[in-house]
Amino acid sequence: MFSRTLAADLPAHVGTTVRLAGWVHRRRALKSVTFLVIRDRSGSAQVVVATTPPLTEETVIEVTGQVVANPQAPQGVEVINPEIRVLSEPTRRPPFDLYRPTIPATLPTVLDNAAVALRHPELKRRHEIAAASVKAFRSALDTRGFTEVHTPKIVATSTESGANVFELDYFGKPAYLAQSPQLFKQILVGVFERVYEVGPVFRAEPHDTARHLAQYTSLDAELGFITDHRDVMAVLRDVVAEMAQAVGLRVPEEIPSIDFAEAQAMLHKDEPDLAPEDERRLGEWAKTTHGSEFLFVTGYPMAKRPFYTHPAPDDPAKSNSFDLLFRGLELVTGGQRLHHHADYLAALRDEAPDYRDYLAAFAHGMPPHGGFAIGLERWVARVLEVPNVRGTTLFPRDLHRLTP
Amino acid sequence: MFSRTLAADLPAHVGTTVRLAGWVHRRRALKSVTFLVIRDRSGSAQVVVATTPPLTEETVIEVTGQVVANPQAPQGVEVINPEIRVLSEPTRRPPFDLYRPTIPATLPTVLDNAAVALRHPELKRRHEIAAASVKAFRSALDTRGFTEVHTPKIVATSTESGANVFELDYFGKPAYLAQSPQLFKQILVGVFERVYEVGPVFRAEPHDTARHLAQYTSLDAELGFITDHRDVMAVLRDVVAEMAQAVGLRVPEEIPSIDFAEAQAMLHKDEPDLAPEDERRLGEWAKTTHGSEFLFVTGYPMAKRPFYTHPAPDDPAKSNSFDLLFRGLELVTGGQRLHHHADYLAALRDEAPDYRDYLAAFAHGMPPHGGFAIGLERWVARVLEVPNVRGTTLFPRDLHRLTP
Repeated sequence: MFSRTLAADLPAHVGTTVRLAGWVHRRRALKSVTFLVIRDRSGSAQVVVATTPPLTEETVIEVTGQVVANPQAPQGVEVINPEIRVLSEPTRRPPFDLYRPTIPATLPTVLDNAAVALRHPELKRRHEIAAASVKAFRSALDTRGFTEVHTPKIVATSTESGANVFELDYFGKPAYLAQSPQLFKQILVGVFERVYEVGPVFRAEPHDTARHLAQYTSLDAELGFITDHRDVMAVLRDVVAEMAQAVGLRVPEEIPSIDFAEAQAMLHKDEPDLAPEDERRLGEWAKTTHGSEFLFVTGYPMAKRPFYTHPAPDDPAKSNSFDLLFRGLELVTGGQRLHHHADYLAALRDEAPDYRDYLAAFAHGMPPHGGFAIGLERWVARVLEVPNVRGTTLFPRDLHRLTP
Repeated sequence: MFSRTLAADLPAHVGTTVRLAGWVHRRRALKSVTFLVIRDRSGSAQVVVATTPPLTEETVIEVTGQVVANPQAPQGVEVINPEIRVLSEPTRRPPFDLYRPTIPATLPTVLDNAAVALRHPELKRRHEIAAASVKAFRSALDTRGFTEVHTPKIVATSTESGANVFELDYFGKPAYLAQSPQLFKQILVGVFERVYEVGPVFRAEPHDTARHLAQYTSLDAELGFITDHRDVMAVLRDVVAEMAQAVGLRVPEEIPSIDFAEAQAMLHKDEPDLAPEDERRLGEWAKTTHGSEFLFVTGYPMAKRPFYTHPAPDDPAKSNSFDLLFRGLELVTGGQRLHHHADYLAALRDEAPDYRDYLAAFAHGMPPHGGFAIGLERWVARVLEVPNVRGTTLFPRDLHRLTP
């Protein structure tokens, strides 16, 4: 049997006989002829059949036929004189038409029927964008001397933030799902200097919002031997630039930056944190003033950042931390971390014993370091302007959703 | 401040002044001079100091000095006339000397002190081998049209195998940690045809063995439009060949293969499964007879394979499945899966309702497909001949170990 041709490669095969394989995406019966649209991983191809075959949508078939040019057909080619072999027949009709430009169903219906909804080309493409983004993230960091690591997702203490943690039964003892690889990636700066991890993180998020999930994919990086958070921001800029390039976007050479206090003044706010509405307004400001869809906000109050945050040397109430907003939404959080053992003991006080293994890294000498974490699903949602992060997650998990 | 030079790059800088940064790996005080060995992510460098500085091992320092050739020094170069700046001082001595060729401590001591033990160059190297292997795994599959995916680690039912599953509290309802991405990756063949995932899997493994962990990193792949399991084996061969090449090993063009029944006969066994000792003997046989460290065992009895396994067309008691042994140990399990909805209903019977969302994929038409899963830590353990898989895991989790 000669080898299979993908739909996207058809134009290179005009005048030859090919074997296609895929799903019946759509049937269009005209007066004298029927068009079968075959969908495969690369795209779709038009097959011309004389009599309408008894094939419903989503039947898996192989088609052997001749490729001919037809300016009216998609890609300018179609397959004629097909021999069709059925590989697998569906036993149920899809709950919506997959050939419509967008799925004619609500988000919950789409999510409930993910096994078939994800076959829609637009939904599939979201996850190809995710894959291309992750590939660029890794490639950018590999080039810069980072080592990929894999850290435990089951941890002994609900340390990083006591709330919003999932508890599990670990051989009869309580344990928790890791909310981030933060503590591990810092320990590993002591080993590899520069590390990254792409993996699931877990938040027992008690609120139903368009931007929170109980599990998401975190793109984490951490690097040692920095001067301060600006070295982390420089690496992050380059990483995001490569991710953006991979999906057809552009990041400015230098991402504009605003100090938290300036942002507060501009927004006439005095709360020590930014609400989603504030981020949206800052995003508009960056776009208007700097022509940038990206904006760094630096110098958040120490009070609002986690215990491992490094203070600003000239103002201990301010932190050497940053958020990166993309299109008016927080995409990345990062900063410089404490690196002296004594500073951790002072920051943690009575809680220090809970962090014994983490503190060991600092007791044994750690360089100045910092890092950042990018939420993958959030990134793709912003890139494609998908309003709900569930729409860029293959099988989302939230307060109400544990299946499929 | 001029830019930092890595230890491994020193030979290119003879005759210039450089800035090194890293950890004091070792101090060697001779009669008239002291050698400081500085360790960084790239390797180590010798620094010559006139008087022994009061720096203990693992102090984090910056060294500015001149690079001179010295045939007696490591890499043929050393740094003289150094100016040393301390970035961070350890508050505790390491529990073992990191500069010895191997860490002089037992495995439990090493694991208990992972934060500092992993800094040992040999231990660090294991995880660089892991990173290089995963990179090759992805690259091999990217080239072959696979899409990377990220699937849920929290699932609603303890389906795949009822035993050895971790239960957690999911917003007040019971849920489970996924033992593999098996069901998701099959569903996703319906979307992308070819998918892979690198991620954690969880087994509540009640036994303490040298080859089992409660969490490990699974390299999973699944592909559609195959003829049978041999197409899966061909892709696996190429993937493992690229992984092996990345770490300096070779995989034969064609990996030798033995049928399960032949293996049984050769081993004079009649149990329907292979024990570790059997695998070891088969590994020796493959090495002696075929000069290969890799061996496929095919045609396992259906009775010993999971419900989604595709039977052999000519013998329904045998399966279209395989294991790949590497150096006498099972490294990979894989095979062709069922793809007709009706076959799943027959295989699952009363349990079918528990698999509703998974079965939806088959109800909507699925191509013949199959896949495999490689255990990353096990791979690295075999490559480097580390006897216990805990030795190739950054922070292992097992029956007794939940920290660091």
